[in-house]
Amino acid sequence: MGKDKSTQFTLKVPKGTKDWDGKDMVIREKIFNTITEVFKRHGAVTIDTPVFELKEILSGKYGEDSKLIYDLADQGGELCSLRYDLTVPFARWLAMNSSVQNIKRYHIAKVYRRDQPAMTKGRMREFYQCDFDIAGAYDPMLPDAEILRITCEIFEALGWQGRYTIKLNHRKILDGIFLVCGVPTDKVRTISSAVDKLDKSPWEEVRKEMTEEKGLDPEVADRIGEYVVQKGGQELLEKLQKDGKLSSNDSAKAGLEDISLLFSYLRTFGILERISFDMSLARGLDYYTGLIYEVVTEGSAPQVADGTAKQKVKKSKSTDGDEDRSDDPSVGVGSVAAGGRYDNLVSMFSGKQQIPCVGISFGVERIFSITKQRLAADASAAAIRGNEVDVYVMAFGGKGFEGLLQERMDVAKRLWDAGIKAEFSWKVKPKLPQQFKAAEANSVPFAVILGDDELAAGQVKIKEMGLPEGHAEKDGVLVQLDNLVQEVQTRIAAQNAQ
Amino acid sequence: MGKDKSTQFTLKVPKGTKDWDGKDMVIREKIFNTITEVFKRHGAVTIDTPVFELKEILSGKYGEDSKLIYDLADQGGELCSLRYDLTVPFARWLAMNSSVQNIKRYHIAKVYRRDQPAMTKGRMREFYQCDFDIAGAYDPMLPDAEILRITCEIFEALGWQGRYTIKLNHRKILDGIFLVCGVPTDKVRTISSAVDKLDKSPWEEVRKEMTEEKGLDPEVADRIGEYVVQKGGQELLEKLQKDGKLSSNDSAKAGLEDISLLFSYLRTFGILERISFDMSLARGLDYYTGLIYEVVTEGSAPQVADGTAKQKVKKSKSTDGDEDRSDDPSVGVGSVAAGGRYDNLVSMFSGKQQIPCVGISFGVERIFSITKQRLAADASAAAIRGNEVDVYVMAFGGKGFEGLLQERMDVAKRLWDAGIKAEFSWKVKPKLPQQFKAAEANSVPFAVILGDDELAAGQVKIKEMGLPEGHAEKDGVLVQLDNLVQEVQTRIAAQNAQ
Repeated sequence: MGKDKSTQFTLKVPKGTKDWDGKDMVIREKIFNTITEVFKRHGAVTIDTPVFELKEILSGKYGEDSKLIYDLADQGGELCSLRYDLTVPFARWLAMNSSVQNIKRYHIAKVYRRDQPAMTKGRMREFYQCDFDIAGAYDPMLPDAEILRITCEIFEALGWQGRYTIKLNHRKILDGIFLVCGVPTDKVRTISSAVDKLDKSPWEEVRKEMTEEKGLDPEVADRIGEYVVQKGGQELLEKLQKDGKLSSNDSAKAGLEDISLLFSYLRTFGILERISFDMSLARGLDYYTGLIYEVVTEGSAPQVADGTAKQKVKKSKSTDGDEDRSDDPSVGVGSVAAGGRYDNLVSMFSGKQQIPCVGISFGVERIFSITKQRLAADASAAAIRGNEVDVYVMAFGGKGFEGLLQERMDVAKRLWDAGIKAEFSWKVKPKLPQQFKAAEANSVPFAVILGDDELAAGQVKIKEMGLPEGHAEKDGVLVQLDNLVQEVQTRIAAQNAQ
Repeated sequence: MGKDKSTQFTLKVPKGTKDWDGKDMVIREKIFNTITEVFKRHGAVTIDTPVFELKEILSGKYGEDSKLIYDLADQGGELCSLRYDLTVPFARWLAMNSSVQNIKRYHIAKVYRRDQPAMTKGRMREFYQCDFDIAGAYDPMLPDAEILRITCEIFEALGWQGRYTIKLNHRKILDGIFLVCGVPTDKVRTISSAVDKLDKSPWEEVRKEMTEEKGLDPEVADRIGEYVVQKGGQELLEKLQKDGKLSSNDSAKAGLEDISLLFSYLRTFGILERISFDMSLARGLDYYTGLIYEVVTEGSAPQVADGTAKQKVKKSKSTDGDEDRSDDPSVGVGSVAAGGRYDNLVSMFSGKQQIPCVGISFGVERIFSITKQRLAADASAAAIRGNEVDVYVMAFGGKGFEGLLQERMDVAKRLWDAGIKAEFSWKVKPKLPQQFKAAEANSVPFAVILGDDELAAGQVKIKEMGLPEGHAEKDGVLVQLDNLVQEVQTRIAAQNAQ
């Protein structure tokens, strides 16, 4: 590292960015593949947009956060900015491709935010987003239900069985609550964003923000409080539907009907038990128009760095007497996926055409951190291999041994021709221990060992690596060179089937 | 499109960039997967570097082309630029990770050049590169041979059987030729870059450039001419090795020994017949130190846009009396992959540590264009599907039909649970023709059809789409709902095996 202006470079990557390599890269690829497989199972396609957009496409979309947008230098020509998320480019694409009236698309790509980085917390300036969205006009709650089903399939496939909860709510219900509680129309959005803080702060603090900072009548705040601390499932839905005051509000009524329909679909999809109907969920972004949701997991992300523990202690001290949110394992834990319905965004670009959309964004960097932690606590961590080679082709011999290089190359060629992943030493006369070491360093499961005498008899040895002492095949098995490919394939298949 | 400053956006992507979607995206993904599979077969791993680097990392690496580098705006903090290729970030990574003494890495990612775009020719400002490099000190020509083997495996896997040639040469042989022909040392590089134009221009023009523009003695130029128009295989190598003048030059001698060794390895790897030892190949980049190569294919890229035909006519007119390059199908056709050995680049970053490298970059955008053309000329073009769904779950019924929505959802769930790719209509009461149309639009191979009567008997129908009239199963086969998953799996497997 270090820097000497005359001859040396500052050997580093830009602030807030990182290289991905080694086992981290392997884990990340596995996560991406797992997620992609689920998307494809549901008929999704992917599109790829440029990493930068015209500056004006992004402006006016992110409110205060617009200051975090990276601009390209003005080197003549158009003014461009690096994409800030994948949603705005998707909406821009939909508006430009008006022949596309419906699509299920996923997009896994990097986005850019000139934020103060906190690397150990996973807050980066360049980071991956993984978005799935359904655009098109359909019967109510059907695409919404499928997105939640996809979400569950993804976390199950990632091995998080039961260790996640989908919190959901509905913008129309929230709006109805605010109106029946007496929030002035012009304060609905700001009060909504105060409510959204209930996952990080106790009600007392949120109430204070509403009344002292935002000038809400304390009685109104208390009425809101009675609603938003509630969460549950079918029984909560029924309770709210019986609430005469709420049901008299058209917005709330429509939202509750949506949730009721959704629940019936989620029951059929077998995922209702993963849902928490959470009245405190409000989501920050303005563009949501219907169902909103967030996936949380127990004791996850914050432990990576500067301590959930501390945060939790602080929380349990301050929540005296209030609802038991302090004991809620999901409080203080960041979400690992979030999204909702946004029916009006595309028309911001097309001007005229409305394409209803519903989507979800997976926090893949956070999912990566949690997965890596779990692997580290797990015996299988050692099993993550750097590469995928199945066979190391090696040779040994006594005095006068010439290395059998061409023979090793020939055997490697036979394996490659059959699609088998194989390596050999790029030394003319490699030593046997070096070859074993190379194979073991990568946990290569099989060695094919060449020797002068065996080759003279048209034979080579296949040795399964890591067999215990005393195992019948510990020293390997001689096979005919002409049968080698088949013998290797059989053994690889058997090992993969285990 | 169009622009109205007050309310509308310019609905476009930045100049020189494009969205990837539809079948193009599907073809591109297939190409990337094919290439990646070959890399992994040879034990390669991937690394991912940031899309932008510190500006100073890139500066001084690209000569005149540095003006094409995209800079980020100075918004406070470090000055950064978008990466121009994947080689410099790889060398920077190697220098920063000095514990890594050897690696086979591939990297498929976008790079950025503020060039005058020519979209139809595939010259973009944002485009993909696909690089494979081997870093580390090994015995001579072994990694080099494996890279050429990998290259052949990739083009075979892409279905280009026999329709490509790897031209190769060696910087040390070229240097030797220039020296024995009498080129002054300070003119070697500039004469080398003139020679490199022989794939696009006839010898007469190149000779003119050497003598008139670059002031080379015409006799020296003619001596060079005798060498560089030669190409062939083993016989050319032997001829050059017997050339007393050339063999007396240490550089040429070392280069010829490398080629001789390489040929013996390529013969074992079974790819010698794909090679053309081409003395006119010089490659533009300064940093190559040994073997250099370029892959060309017949009648490929230039036909995409503004006419190889025209270019070819012009060429055959101007090459009167000269070597038969005008009839060479590879003349005027851009390369689809290129690379070579660069043993000194990493030390530009590390200052001290030398890590020998050899690599190749695949022109994936050009490979995409050629693949797409071939598919278009091919019956299989229609077979490219937009998504990968295997089963469309549909329902039909007579008067009073309620749509069987929950039942369709239940069947879809059963299929998803088994990992089967399935869709159903997001309408409560879809019409049967609409459902068939949706399935046919995507060439979905199977329909599962639900009806009230069949369901009452615990049965559903599986219908293979596109069966000819008169086929025994044209109208589908009734199976027990409880056996559905297995019945579908069997049919998908059978179809995939065809």
